[in-house]
Amino acid sequence: MPDILKTREHLVQFIKERQTVLTIGLDTDAKKLPSTIGSDVLDFNKAIIEATHEQCVSYKLNFAFYESLGSAGWSILEKTIQLIPSTHLIIADAKRGDIGNTSEMYARAIYDMLGCDAITVSPYMGSDSVRPFYRDGKWVIILALTSNEGSNDFQQKELADGKKLYEEVMDISSKWGSADDTMFVLGATHPSDVKKIRSNFPDHFFLVPGIGAQGGDLDAICEAGLNRDGGLLINASRSILYAGKGNDFAEKAREEANRMNKLIKPHLEKAMIPSNS
Amino acid sequence: MPDILKTREHLVQFIKERQTVLTIGLDTDAKKLPSTIGSDVLDFNKAIIEATHEQCVSYKLNFAFYESLGSAGWSILEKTIQLIPSTHLIIADAKRGDIGNTSEMYARAIYDMLGCDAITVSPYMGSDSVRPFYRDGKWVIILALTSNEGSNDFQQKELADGKKLYEEVMDISSKWGSADDTMFVLGATHPSDVKKIRSNFPDHFFLVPGIGAQGGDLDAICEAGLNRDGGLLINASRSILYAGKGNDFAEKAREEANRMNKLIKPHLEKAMIPSNS
Repeated sequence: MPDILKTREHLVQFIKERQTVLTIGLDTDAKKLPSTIGSDVLDFNKAIIEATHEQCVSYKLNFAFYESLGSAGWSILEKTIQLIPSTHLIIADAKRGDIGNTSEMYARAIYDMLGCDAITVSPYMGSDSVRPFYRDGKWVIILALTSNEGSNDFQQKELADGKKLYEEVMDISSKWGSADDTMFVLGATHPSDVKKIRSNFPDHFFLVPGIGAQGGDLDAICEAGLNRDGGLLINASRSILYAGKGNDFAEKAREEANRMNKLIKPHLEKAMIPSNS
Repeated sequence: MPDILKTREHLVQFIKERQTVLTIGLDTDAKKLPSTIGSDVLDFNKAIIEATHEQCVSYKLNFAFYESLGSAGWSILEKTIQLIPSTHLIIADAKRGDIGNTSEMYARAIYDMLGCDAITVSPYMGSDSVRPFYRDGKWVIILALTSNEGSNDFQQKELADGKKLYEEVMDISSKWGSADDTMFVLGATHPSDVKKIRSNFPDHFFLVPGIGAQGGDLDAICEAGLNRDGGLLINASRSILYAGKGNDFAEKAREEANRMNKLIKPHLEKAMIPSNS
């Protein structure tokens, strides 16, 4: 169970130490594991975490992949979280959100039972569906402009006042908390939107999925989104987990994380104020 | 595991037989159980299902309450679903929705591992986040206008074309499926909106939470929303589960379900075409 409060201060300091904003997404698919591992998701996760924890600042657990294994999967989720070093931000990528008494139960599940530091939430049901997720040292990560094609269906809709829905979501929901406890999900597939959003939200962290398998451009998203505190958590899942298909899958995962970090580092050096300044 | 396909035909026939559209929400809170039950959520659910299954056509499982108990809770969820008669529509009230490959994993969890017949989904991420939930004999229940105060934050926002966001969500998402496989969540706290929506969507089923603890008016929602096939699933959770606090909690739950059914029945008789016509 993580025992360090993952405040903004901790996160920024950790990004400076690691010289990266890489988040590794544990979207572990039992059907895609190397033959040496069989279908043991926990063994796979353990090897990936051991091989990559020095290459990233955060792990993101995609709950769907664990729930698809039933109660055994939920148990693997619990055990995987125990394996993550207490320095790392642990993100429950669960996209929850419901009426108040129910969101409060989800918060208990994610924070008290699992020990996660952050949760992704859907804004559709409004303020009282999101507020129960705010707690000291925890991060609420609100869906704004997602990486998938369906983001065009509603998120990009123009409102009567000329704003797009996702802009309204960000304007309103940014007031539910602050840049110290609220992040937004912005897909790597929208670098020009991210650039514009950064100028309106200079301080917030953005969780950015969509690099790798989904086609997002790492350089473009770094240019558009990094700020002096880092300000991004760039997630890669499939491209790291399945970088190798054989016995050397963990080593290949680390190599892929290193490759990404080499691309991120010069952008980060340019954007961040050096830690001795 | 339910072995009857819960087609629209099955559901409408079952509503005619039972003369009700009552759905019982198993939002079972381990901290609110009678002292004779202790904190055994499964025993409580078993007693409630045995006492009420002749009074309702559907059970709705609120996943948050099970997830708040960790992997043990997910196991209780699995076992509870096994206890529900195969005639009843089993709704996973999980409010899921993610990019395509992830929603597909949630669909496996809900349909293949748990055996549910229906799932509530959030529309915010658009078509490709919802499509994986469509399967033969399964129902996709899309959040439209929810019962909570936060429904004003975004769902009621006016778009550039004059429609409200929830109206746009219904117009667009109703094309992803049909009235045979798609329902909408409409809160009982908005009867006048439901009346207007019914005239635009004469055939769709609406799942209606918000009666009881949340203050929705049962008569008003029946008047506004019932159609000749029933067309509503009216959910009650807390008001039924905790109708009694002692040993007789299951009997009190049945009495409360009966009380609601007596209110629903005359509206239903007025709205439905008799089964012999």
